[in-house]
Amino acid sequence: MSDEVLAEIGKLGAATVFYLLHMRGVGRKYGSGPIVMQNVAPLAPGRKLVGRAVTLRYLPTREDLQAEIATSSGADGMNATPRWRVIEACGPGDVLVSDAMGQSGTSTGGEIVYGRLFQRGAAGIVTDGAIRDAQPTVDLGWPVYAGGRATMIGETKMLPYEFNVPIQCGGVLVRPGDIILGDDDGVVVLAAGFAEEVARAGKEHEAIERSILANMGEENVSPAHYYPFNEGTLAMHRARQASGKGAQE
Amino acid sequence: MSDEVLAEIGKLGAATVFYLLHMRGVGRKYGSGPIVMQNVAPLAPGRKLVGRAVTLRYLPTREDLQAEIATSSGADGMNATPRWRVIEACGPGDVLVSDAMGQSGTSTGGEIVYGRLFQRGAAGIVTDGAIRDAQPTVDLGWPVYAGGRATMIGETKMLPYEFNVPIQCGGVLVRPGDIILGDDDGVVVLAAGFAEEVARAGKEHEAIERSILANMGEENVSPAHYYPFNEGTLAMHRARQASGKGAQE
Amino acid sequence: MSDEVLAEIGKLGAATVFYLLHMRGVGRKYGSGPIVMQNVAPLAPGRKLVGRAVTLRYLPTREDLQAEIATSSGADGMNATPRWRVIEACGPGDVLVSDAMGQSGTSTGGEIVYGRLFQRGAAGIVTDGAIRDAQPTVDLGWPVYAGGRATMIGETKMLPYEFNVPIQCGGVLVRPGDIILGDDDGVVVLAAGFAEEVARAGKEHEAIERSILANMGEENVSPAHYYPFNEGTLAMHRARQASGKGAQE
Amino acid sequence: MSDEVLAEIGKLGAATVFYLLHMRGVGRKYGSGPIVMQNVAPLAPGRKLVGRAVTLRYLPTREDLQAEIATSSGADGMNATPRWRVIEACGPGDVLVSDAMGQSGTSTGGEIVYGRLFQRGAAGIVTDGAIRDAQPTVDLGWPVYAGGRATMIGETKMLPYEFNVPIQCGGVLVRPGDIILGDDDGVVVLAAGFAEEVARAGKEHEAIERSILANMGEENVSPAHYYPFNEGTLAMHRARQASGKGAQE
Amino acid sequence: MSDEVLAEIGKLGAATVFYLLHMRGVGRKYGSGPIVMQNVAPLAPGRKLVGRAVTLRYLPTREDLQAEIATSSGADGMNATPRWRVIEACGPGDVLVSDAMGQSGTSTGGEIVYGRLFQRGAAGIVTDGAIRDAQPTVDLGWPVYAGGRATMIGETKMLPYEFNVPIQCGGVLVRPGDIILGDDDGVVVLAAGFAEEVARAGKEHEAIERSILANMGEENVSPAHYYPFNEGTLAMHRARQASGKGAQE
Amino acid sequence: MSDEVLAEIGKLGAATVFYLLHMRGVGRKYGSGPIVMQNVAPLAPGRKLVGRAVTLRYLPTREDLQAEIATSSGADGMNATPRWRVIEACGPGDVLVSDAMGQSGTSTGGEIVYGRLFQRGAAGIVTDGAIRDAQPTVDLGWPVYAGGRATMIGETKMLPYEFNVPIQCGGVLVRPGDIILGDDDGVVVLAAGFAEEVARAGKEHEAIERSILANMGEENVSPAHYYPFNEGTLAMHRARQASGKGAQE
Repeated sequence: MSDEVLAEIGKLGAATVFYLLHMRGVGRKYGSGPIVMQNVAPLAPGRKLVGRAVTLRYLPTREDLQAEIATSSGADGMNATPRWRVIEACGPGDVLVSDAMGQSGTSTGGEIVYGRLFQRGAAGIVTDGAIRDAQPTVDLGWPVYAGGRATMIGETKMLPYEFNVPIQCGGVLVRPGDIILGDDDGVVVLAAGFAEEVARAGKEHEAIERSILANMGEENVSPAHYYPFNEGTLAMHRARQASGKGAQE
Repeated sequence: MSDEVLAEIGKLGAATVFYLLHMRGVGRKYGSGPIVMQNVAPLAPGRKLVGRAVTLRYLPTREDLQAEIATSSGADGMNATPRWRVIEACGPGDVLVSDAMGQSGTSTGGEIVYGRLFQRGAAGIVTDGAIRDAQPTVDLGWPVYAGGRATMIGETKMLPYEFNVPIQCGGVLVRPGDIILGDDDGVVVLAAGFAEEVARAGKEHEAIERSILANMGEENVSPAHYYPFNEGTLAMHRARQASGKGAQE
Repeated sequence: MSDEVLAEIGKLGAATVFYLLHMRGVGRKYGSGPIVMQNVAPLAPGRKLVGRAVTLRYLPTREDLQAEIATSSGADGMNATPRWRVIEACGPGDVLVSDAMGQSGTSTGGEIVYGRLFQRGAAGIVTDGAIRDAQPTVDLGWPVYAGGRATMIGETKMLPYEFNVPIQCGGVLVRPGDIILGDDDGVVVLAAGFAEEVARAGKEHEAIERSILANMGEENVSPAHYYPFNEGTLAMHRARQASGKGAQE
Repeated sequence: MSDEVLAEIGKLGAATVFYLLHMRGVGRKYGSGPIVMQNVAPLAPGRKLVGRAVTLRYLPTREDLQAEIATSSGADGMNATPRWRVIEACGPGDVLVSDAMGQSGTSTGGEIVYGRLFQRGAAGIVTDGAIRDAQPTVDLGWPVYAGGRATMIGETKMLPYEFNVPIQCGGVLVRPGDIILGDDDGVVVLAAGFAEEVARAGKEHEAIERSILANMGEENVSPAHYYPFNEGTLAMHRARQASGKGAQE
Repeated sequence: MSDEVLAEIGKLGAATVFYLLHMRGVGRKYGSGPIVMQNVAPLAPGRKLVGRAVTLRYLPTREDLQAEIATSSGADGMNATPRWRVIEACGPGDVLVSDAMGQSGTSTGGEIVYGRLFQRGAAGIVTDGAIRDAQPTVDLGWPVYAGGRATMIGETKMLPYEFNVPIQCGGVLVRPGDIILGDDDGVVVLAAGFAEEVARAGKEHEAIERSILANMGEENVSPAHYYPFNEGTLAMHRARQASGKGAQE
Repeated sequence: MSDEVLAEIGKLGAATVFYLLHMRGVGRKYGSGPIVMQNVAPLAPGRKLVGRAVTLRYLPTREDLQAEIATSSGADGMNATPRWRVIEACGPGDVLVSDAMGQSGTSTGGEIVYGRLFQRGAAGIVTDGAIRDAQPTVDLGWPVYAGGRATMIGETKMLPYEFNVPIQCGGVLVRPGDIILGDDDGVVVLAAGFAEEVARAGKEHEAIERSILANMGEENVSPAHYYPFNEGTLAMHRARQASGKGAQE
């Protein structure tokens, strides 16, 4: 998936992508598989998130697991818990998505951990766990989507176990490289294989909706005439484009 | 109910109206019937909502119902789902109240549907379901009360079925024409028959409370002396009014 | 839908019918419409329920609605609340399905109300509300599916409003005449139009699964070979039938 | 309140007492104060509970509180935590009601603690916390109402703090000496001052309902004619009693 | 860990093991890591479960993952989804523990899948998901612990992804080979390294408690004297043992 | 505890204090006693709260309790409900902490009650109940932490019962005089006996973390090298301090 496609996706609303995926049968062919995260919301509204998923999986705390994770070290001498390693694996355009097993009251990191992630140029944070030092983390100015804010440090409840494996987050499957798209309506996950098609369809879909809105504003016509999209919808849209009245991006 | 009474109600706090209804036995004569909606909150705080209810009832999705609703048309050629029809039935002073069966993660509409409602002059939106394109909808500048924001389009979960019938919303009965009053404390529903009495009592009640606050500020007297309202309360209030110190609206 | 088809449906497991509906795209064509009720369970396990839905819709209590409902009378002189009327409208093979708006702690009836329903020969009770006098009601020996047991009389929280209209119950659409099928796994709702096809497919499906079980027991073969159903599955099933080893109903 | 009155109350259903209290305005005069416990259910169904409340109040665990409670001793040399003391304060006819702050996953006691309570002749157990060793506790054959069963020992989460003070349990006020009445429908709390009136009214109420049931069974008459209770109801009831057909207790 | 130790553990109550682990600091050294599963209960009460964990991890459904899992085959020609493979990996003394991400309304298997597991001699089932065909599965007579019963087939919501890896189940870490101990109080997870110590301590602990109970029964002495365990407790216990009055296992 | 120590505590983050208490074993010696409130959040983010607890305990409403509380009067002639009395008992540096039994939809007070508290110089409000007139209360400019906003007046559901006794709030023990520390991450409760030690350790802890952040910013070094705190961490910190590069408070 090219950066151009990613950028196009980033112009779409999360609700539009949800709609397009749904109409294409995603989450329907074999079942009603989820597309949108539950109980994950922006800590600071108004910041669009788009990027490629880098994943981190947590498990409940236990001493034997804690001992293994905290003391094992890589050749680079760094403290080798998967959480620190995954952060160094992130770069520009990446979104760190952490499966905290839905524990929305337990912190997955704060000012220092996520400050390092920000320093590495990551596009944002998504977790169904919590963020501590939430305000300084948000004040870095990037998109932060989480299950909540918390004082409770993660180690009391859960441990980072492995990274860049398939995970759940907010009840949705996330595989490394999936596209993560978030806005105030929610966070949707888009398998990379759908990206080009959705980017193209989404651009068209939102253009038609801008025509409907503009038409409504200028002509006082109920949008009811144009839903579900029909011949009249496309005729109106094309007429507006031909006349140069097509709404601009 | 006159527009003047509606305007007077609109000056009251939702908590005051709750109190007055409660003291009059509403929700108590036959039972403990609810007055205030649960799990419905303003998407943008600080915007008072008052108006007359126009109601819309949703039901869970099923293909046979979908086929009936989406394809039936009125003589005016409009797409005749009840959702589109109810919007055209709304005008200035109306509040569209949608019974989404408490499905706070499923959208009842977004920028286009609710943009049309706004264009028709409606006073606001109330639903125990969600809003998609929530930010553009809120940015129109009117009061929007909902169960949440969501990417999930309603059709995947529920269908508009009929309008201007009695519904539940947030666990409260809403009949067409009821007064809907919302502020940051919550949304209360006031049967039209109570409107005049509540408007009059509420005006008096809030005036007395302003006197208590003013008295507290000027004399450093605990309001405890004046609760529950007693002879001394009214004496103090009348004395302040007589002396021209009655707090102003 | 004939009584024979209804009887065939009654031999199937609720999970089988869920599977067959799901594979046919019910709840998937336009969305992920629900098929199985949430938060509705048998008060006495082990009693299969099957019948045609007769529906009752509740709304939250309010004095004006209470006054209308409780005092209006039909020509027959009976107390004409919709709850009493719907019970007299039920007969053998009918299941009374009550939409209690998910209020699982509020009673929809008890020994007397449901005793009358039993006396009229109804096939059972389904509600997402509660049952009071739950034990005597259950002790009549029929299938009772509810959101819970409760002392709280319904009138304090909700009122029966209308009957034999489309409702939700446990989050699922129920229309009058739909087939209701319940066992310890849950309650599924089957639109009448699907009944014949599901009855036929279900009979075949459960026969194949009995062959798989019998084959597993006799040959110690993992059922994994036969899922998803494939050529080998059908070959094995037909061979067992031909050899007279087909499992009996 | 005499033992006779208590015995009469014990013959009534919890739902009947709820209804009678509700109609008398309990929980309505000043508000909608609760009468029936939430999230408290019988661990073994079918065992009626009636008795006078002895109360125990828990608070969240903290080391300083733990140190005070566990080490302080009374003159009798017993381990003086309030939990042990309250058990020795219970005797025949008493129900130990423990306010576990709704922590339904944390144990308030098990086989040994509650075995001692049983040995002292107490009428039963009510708590919105959990019971550990639940099966041996239940197997003593008495009524046990709780928020759940649990392995989690209470001391990890909460401490017994004081006894025979007013508490909440399951969201309801319980004062020492209140009557606790429980059956499979739920647990209601009855202030001692209401006991005589409720006992008398309940006896009459249930007799009338037995007449309605008997009348329905014998005459196939819908109970709808007799609700709400009216002249015809009482006439029918008295006629049955006069003819010796009054249902027996 | 020997089979003898496992058998000794199986004689202990889950609450006893919880207590012993807690007192040894498990779940406390680095944090308050969980020991007991939440929202997992026996479908049929009264059946003790003990065995070694074999683990299965589910992820949310998505078409690309479904395609990979359902069509890949091992050299043995079996349908190679991890769920079928893990069942063939189980034998006597094994407990299949499935991480269904807490989706208590979605089935992880039913009569056929779990029938095969039973045929292979497994000691029982634990999952925080649901069981379909729950009654036939339970009727095999073994211990079945789950989040619930359901008609909803798993494939609509989640997919088996990998087995014999560390998982969460009911909020607790489970590693392959851990001891799983369940009774009506709950399910506790015991790392194999603790087994011998807990078996020995548990045997002693329960013997002392039997002495306390027997002493209470015979002498009418409050157990308060013996808690927390102290010199007097041990003296009483040893005296009973010396006199041959030690309670028998 | 001196005002200086209180002021030092007030400079720390709630998450830091949680961490320090946790590492000292608070909430771990006898159990996993809670330190941080659940379901209590700032109504206006960004306002640090620190002060000494003054406590108020609510109980569920009942008429007999209402009658006792509302009519009893102290010698000063004031309406003597515990709520009014506790407010007059508060002064500068005090935080009123109200145990509303977790009823987050029921008001504990509004503009007038809390306006009086503000007038008396209290440092802030904490409750697991709700606030009515929430916006005017927040607009006073002080820290307000609550379970929510509500129109529902407290008297309909609960009554103030006693003050300056140990309570729970948000699931945590609060004793009069405890230190309450709140920020956007949450509210932690600190027993006075720990104050000096935590103030000293917290100052050091946050200084080291500022060094790590500064070092990261200047040297692009991953903080992973410095966690958990080790020799290298302290060396780096001391080096920065020696060189005058120690981050300033």
